[in-house]
Amino acid sequence: MIEHPAYTVEPWCLRETELNLTVLAQSESVFALANGHLGWRGNLDEGPHDLPGSYLNGVHELHPLPYAEAGYGYPESRQTMINVTDGKIIRLLVDDEPFDPRYGELTAHQRVLDLREGVLRRTAEWTSPTGRRVRITSTRLVSFTQRAIAAVRYEVEPLDDRTSVVLQSELVANEHLPGGDGDPRAAATTASPLQHEQDFAQGTRLRLVHRTERSKLRIAAAADHIVEGPEGTTTSAESEPDVSRLTVAATLAPGQVLRLVKFVSYGWSARRSLPEVHDQVDAALAAARSTGWAGLRAEQRGYLDNFWACGDVEVHGDAQVQQAVRFGLFHVLQAAARGEERAIPAKGLTGTGYDGHSFWDTESFVLPVLTYTAPQAVAPVLRWRHTTLPAARARARQLGLEGAAFPWRTITGEECSGYWPAGTAAFHVNADIADAVLRYVAATGDEDFEKGPGLDLMVHTARLWRSLGHHDTEGVFHIDGVTGPDEYSALGRDNLYTNLMAQQNLRAAAEMALRHPQHARELGIGDEEAALWRDAADKMAVPYNEALDVHEQSAGFTRFQPWDFDGTGPDKYPLMLHFPYFDLYRRQVVKQADLVLAMQTRPDAFTAEQKARNFAYYEPLTVRDSSLSACTQAVLAAETGHLRLAYAYLREAALMDLENLEHNTRDGLHIASLAGTWIALVKGFGGMRRHGRSAAFAPRLPEQLNRLCFTVVLRQQALRVEVTGSAARYLLLGDEPLEITHHGEPLPLTPSVTVERPIPPARSQPEPEQPPGRRPAGARKS
Amino acid sequence: MIEHPAYTVEPWCLRETELNLTVLAQSESVFALANGHLGWRGNLDEGPHDLPGSYLNGVHELHPLPYAEAGYGYPESRQTMINVTDGKIIRLLVDDEPFDPRYGELTAHQRVLDLREGVLRRTAEWTSPTGRRVRITSTRLVSFTQRAIAAVRYEVEPLDDRTSVVLQSELVANEHLPGGDGDPRAAATTASPLQHEQDFAQGTRLRLVHRTERSKLRIAAAADHIVEGPEGTTTSAESEPDVSRLTVAATLAPGQVLRLVKFVSYGWSARRSLPEVHDQVDAALAAARSTGWAGLRAEQRGYLDNFWACGDVEVHGDAQVQQAVRFGLFHVLQAAARGEERAIPAKGLTGTGYDGHSFWDTESFVLPVLTYTAPQAVAPVLRWRHTTLPAARARARQLGLEGAAFPWRTITGEECSGYWPAGTAAFHVNADIADAVLRYVAATGDEDFEKGPGLDLMVHTARLWRSLGHHDTEGVFHIDGVTGPDEYSALGRDNLYTNLMAQQNLRAAAEMALRHPQHARELGIGDEEAALWRDAADKMAVPYNEALDVHEQSAGFTRFQPWDFDGTGPDKYPLMLHFPYFDLYRRQVVKQADLVLAMQTRPDAFTAEQKARNFAYYEPLTVRDSSLSACTQAVLAAETGHLRLAYAYLREAALMDLENLEHNTRDGLHIASLAGTWIALVKGFGGMRRHGRSAAFAPRLPEQLNRLCFTVVLRQQALRVEVTGSAARYLLLGDEPLEITHHGEPLPLTPSVTVERPIPPARSQPEPEQPPGRRPAGARKS
Repeated sequence: MIEHPAYTVEPWCLRETELNLTVLAQSESVFALANGHLGWRGNLDEGPHDLPGSYLNGVHELHPLPYAEAGYGYPESRQTMINVTDGKIIRLLVDDEPFDPRYGELTAHQRVLDLREGVLRRTAEWTSPTGRRVRITSTRLVSFTQRAIAAVRYEVEPLDDRTSVVLQSELVANEHLPGGDGDPRAAATTASPLQHEQDFAQGTRLRLVHRTERSKLRIAAAADHIVEGPEGTTTSAESEPDVSRLTVAATLAPGQVLRLVKFVSYGWSARRSLPEVHDQVDAALAAARSTGWAGLRAEQRGYLDNFWACGDVEVHGDAQVQQAVRFGLFHVLQAAARGEERAIPAKGLTGTGYDGHSFWDTESFVLPVLTYTAPQAVAPVLRWRHTTLPAARARARQLGLEGAAFPWRTITGEECSGYWPAGTAAFHVNADIADAVLRYVAATGDEDFEKGPGLDLMVHTARLWRSLGHHDTEGVFHIDGVTGPDEYSALGRDNLYTNLMAQQNLRAAAEMALRHPQHARELGIGDEEAALWRDAADKMAVPYNEALDVHEQSAGFTRFQPWDFDGTGPDKYPLMLHFPYFDLYRRQVVKQADLVLAMQTRPDAFTAEQKARNFAYYEPLTVRDSSLSACTQAVLAAETGHLRLAYAYLREAALMDLENLEHNTRDGLHIASLAGTWIALVKGFGGMRRHGRSAAFAPRLPEQLNRLCFTVVLRQQALRVEVTGSAARYLLLGDEPLEITHHGEPLPLTPSVTVERPIPPARSQPEPEQPPGRRPAGARKS
Repeated sequence: MIEHPAYTVEPWCLRETELNLTVLAQSESVFALANGHLGWRGNLDEGPHDLPGSYLNGVHELHPLPYAEAGYGYPESRQTMINVTDGKIIRLLVDDEPFDPRYGELTAHQRVLDLREGVLRRTAEWTSPTGRRVRITSTRLVSFTQRAIAAVRYEVEPLDDRTSVVLQSELVANEHLPGGDGDPRAAATTASPLQHEQDFAQGTRLRLVHRTERSKLRIAAAADHIVEGPEGTTTSAESEPDVSRLTVAATLAPGQVLRLVKFVSYGWSARRSLPEVHDQVDAALAAARSTGWAGLRAEQRGYLDNFWACGDVEVHGDAQVQQAVRFGLFHVLQAAARGEERAIPAKGLTGTGYDGHSFWDTESFVLPVLTYTAPQAVAPVLRWRHTTLPAARARARQLGLEGAAFPWRTITGEECSGYWPAGTAAFHVNADIADAVLRYVAATGDEDFEKGPGLDLMVHTARLWRSLGHHDTEGVFHIDGVTGPDEYSALGRDNLYTNLMAQQNLRAAAEMALRHPQHARELGIGDEEAALWRDAADKMAVPYNEALDVHEQSAGFTRFQPWDFDGTGPDKYPLMLHFPYFDLYRRQVVKQADLVLAMQTRPDAFTAEQKARNFAYYEPLTVRDSSLSACTQAVLAAETGHLRLAYAYLREAALMDLENLEHNTRDGLHIASLAGTWIALVKGFGGMRRHGRSAAFAPRLPEQLNRLCFTVVLRQQALRVEVTGSAARYLLLGDEPLEITHHGEPLPLTPSVTVERPIPPARSQPEPEQPPGRRPAGARKS
């Protein structure tokens, strides 16, 4: 829990009313601004910083991956997202006292992340140790419309006396970063990742160009300023290798304001020359300055108005969840909006957790939300995966496999996982990518994408599965030695999630090849190969324990020794920090929804009764030591009629970062879990599932919520869904009719005509137990 | 293959008649001398060296174990056996030209490892670049009777002209070592592991005392010399931190000899002070000097005469195997004789391969030989394991288990394995230790050992198994997630070898506790606990494929995908250097005998028909990428009637190091494989098995051998077994009658009365195939 007066609960913003330096790092994450290309952590303008962070999507350094005992095919190089040149810094001197909340007295403090305006606003009133009182107001944005641009408007005014103030607006490279605390989920830090190439300061303009040593990336940052102050205000610029600085000095009478607007532009390239890159940032800067502060603000608002019109979710009955789902959607958008063929890191651009790597989270948690709320952001991400296909094909060859083996964790597409049983062996990432392709194509009908990169991705992943699995003597197709989503199991046989997702992958690849015979021929797919895919899919093993009448997470799982939950105290979680993998892997203990996720992603593969029984069986085994779990459990709890429990899981997903439930929000936000709030609401209480090229809905609300409205984009049309306790109303805002289903009943929708259907009651069933002490965190307040 | 004129084939020595510097490192390993406490590689006295090596059993340095992704319970510290002060070096200058075989001309060279004398003799004739001819003769020993002592007698004489010679006899610390070549089986080298504490040189005496930085071990080496030369011979001594040197100068006429006898003593301690340690080495030196060179030689011969009387094996029909089995026994003795509560490293004290670590090789391959040939060397090794019980108990607690979890690889008893699926998960090492206890107690009747450390080891390993396994709903006891001997499988369920060895461990612990109720009570064992052990043993899962009618290496193994042997070229072996573990683990491919080893160690658990079918099934899957495999396959091939194949495996085991079959003899000898030659002969063609407190024999020779004689020590009596093609003769040399079995028939033996029994013919069966290209190396010459 973030132990400070919690953020106020407001529908469209996140407001902090007190500055608590002990939780500074968490607030730096939640107040981060980004646009998918450029990210600025919510660091205080003047400092102090806990973890200063300015990130450019894709900018990383390489380090050798160390092994106590090396092995064939182990990745040699670790990629680490680095903190680039910091353009946020504006230092303030008040009569020669540096403004620092640790000295003097901070009599007022407020920060507001405005989810509609897309800005971080801050006001502070400070009395210096020598008794000078000033008011500071700053507003910061990272532009959605001009992806290279961030900007700050900073104002200072004296409250009592005539006061001399100095502002130092800087670009700083190689900031000091705190050392790692040994948590494997935190990133390796590099002392000085940036090598100086050029520094420049003239007039109100600053520029620094640096290069990384091993990854050979050139990074430029430039700033320009508009200064407004009383007569006598002076400016001077100076530069050294790692700092470029504009100094503004003024003497202010009470009522007088010194105002600085700082435009910052970033650029980077692995190939372009120094002049090319510095011209690029100067040009972006000129454009931004020409747009101006007010212009940037207006563009930002326009971009977000458009986003919320297509993607907003209204929650009535729980103001915290209302705030959280918008907070989550905003950060998901920030992680993805302008990535443009770059990955979406697990922490977005909000911190260096997980080294800035992208995992299956992208395709399985983030893209499901964007596909239905901001579909234009999805194709670039999948195109990014497609750009990494050569690396994935090389990796497959290295592993002795056909097709492509996409990496478990990466920035550029090369595998960076240093622990293969939970990395390389987690082949399901390939089916997750294929699933994202299918979802995107079904939801948008983007045929150009489908027959281009889409088909290519489907085919290479299908080839992987065909070569990874094998038939047994009875003709059953098995996939052995792989690791599913649950990281407390590894190297199992026939992981159910993996097998079902591979089955879908194989079948869909064959179908897609049939739909695009010309492109299929270019990829060398003949009828025989497609037949092999269909056959493997048809014969796919689906492990099931007949005696218990439940599916098995992997073959033999239900016969493993139970975990001793009663003997596991609350201080022993997360289990992976207190028990060896050896012990976790051989027991019935589940870190995160695995089979339960399969029931969400492959709802057709289970009967309603099986879903209910499976959920009841796995629920008491699932400890949720992963932030990816709660939202999935919410969805299946809702589907199986456990609405109270689903609501508790929804709240846990919603509050993951706002209440720092995983204790590592400081390293960055859990973007997938933030997406999970939407998933829990829309897929859980909205009961939305993919249904051919349309969608199925089976809405049903918990008693705590009295109304849920959401809009999803389906084939370029917005579909507005409003759910109350008794009925659901569907309104299609578009030109083309669309057939959906409501609780299994086909429901043709005509544009602009609201259709209402009653909600059938849920079957009453005993609620499954969680492991002792592992009830959803959200349940505490329910 | 060592590509030089092979060693001559002689029954009692290994002779090299030419110096080939390209294979210098291998020869340094095969010519190593050691006594279990102190080891000197067979480095040339004057150099050059490929891998200089002087080792003290237990002397190691610590290094952090690096992990790309850390995990709970991962060992933090790597222990690495270090090269200590080199006392072997005697440099020779001939008229100011250093004697170096790379310059001038080496007109004669011979090295002889004499297996009865226990010395390494060397003669060389060299013409210096300026034309001076000299003859050098040196004899080196590492004393079996004075464990701190090594000694060299070095002679030089001019062959043509009056010649000025200088000898520099040195102690050298921190010798330069070649860098590793990246093979994970080689050791991490440390540039300068020894920190200077004291150096001393006076008269003919030298001393160096150093300390290791992190392991905090104090190491002293001292030398004294006897110089015999013509009048005018001078000596001088000098010392600096890492070199202490005696220089002897003489001018020799033809016929005159300069002779140096160098006594070297070593001592080390983690606790004793500098004066204590240097007094210790000085005292050992004084004792050795008092014994004198001739005395040391006589003691050495006496020690070995005694050993060979109890342990020799005579092989008629294959002179190479005859030589190899004695070479192997000699090195096994050298690895263990005077270890005195230290481990037996996998490479003995012959090189730094595997970091000088000890594995299960000790208990499962080396001790079986020593138990029946030099039983007095066995108890100290098991007592060493017992001294590490506190570490093993702590490790078990760390892993959440009861009892003791002995390390997979270690020097001091702390786990040093950096890859847990093939380290920590290989719990069978615990049952292997218990098996060694049972074997030793059965063979010797050493009751003091049994009720002391023996019972303690049995009980703590039994407790481990009981807590590691669990009963399923039908009451079957399973051990999940463990790795058996085969390193191409990991984390399987119910590894057959592990389960059967654990079963024996559990049963025997209960029986032993019953035999020693007083000691059992002290260990807190009640009737209930013993009952739990018996029950788990009785209900132990034994995976069996009914359709194929064979046992499974682990549950489900026989349903894994077959390895594509036909598509695997000869350049792809060892497989682990060309394929990922991921792929190896999920297929039917076996690195080393696993289930086949179980049939040797638990012969009672299989019918003869099962053994034959199992052997036939696993043989085509076993690639023998481990030097531990061939001897086990030899034993079971012999038992199942495949005598020609058994003979080929015997030869492969026998020639492992002599012909460098694994291409890493340079890093040290494969002590377990050297022991394997004896195992293949005695357990294979002698058909010897443990049988209660006596032994069973089922001898049968391949047609290539016409006679096999061996002596084993059973309960302090020597039993001589002579096998020919048609009959076996047993002669008990002792006072007490003993009942053995011969091909299943009980055979009471009376002391000094030879009993002869005919050998029943082997059943004729088709010989199983090996994977393509993986026929035993020994088969090439058969």
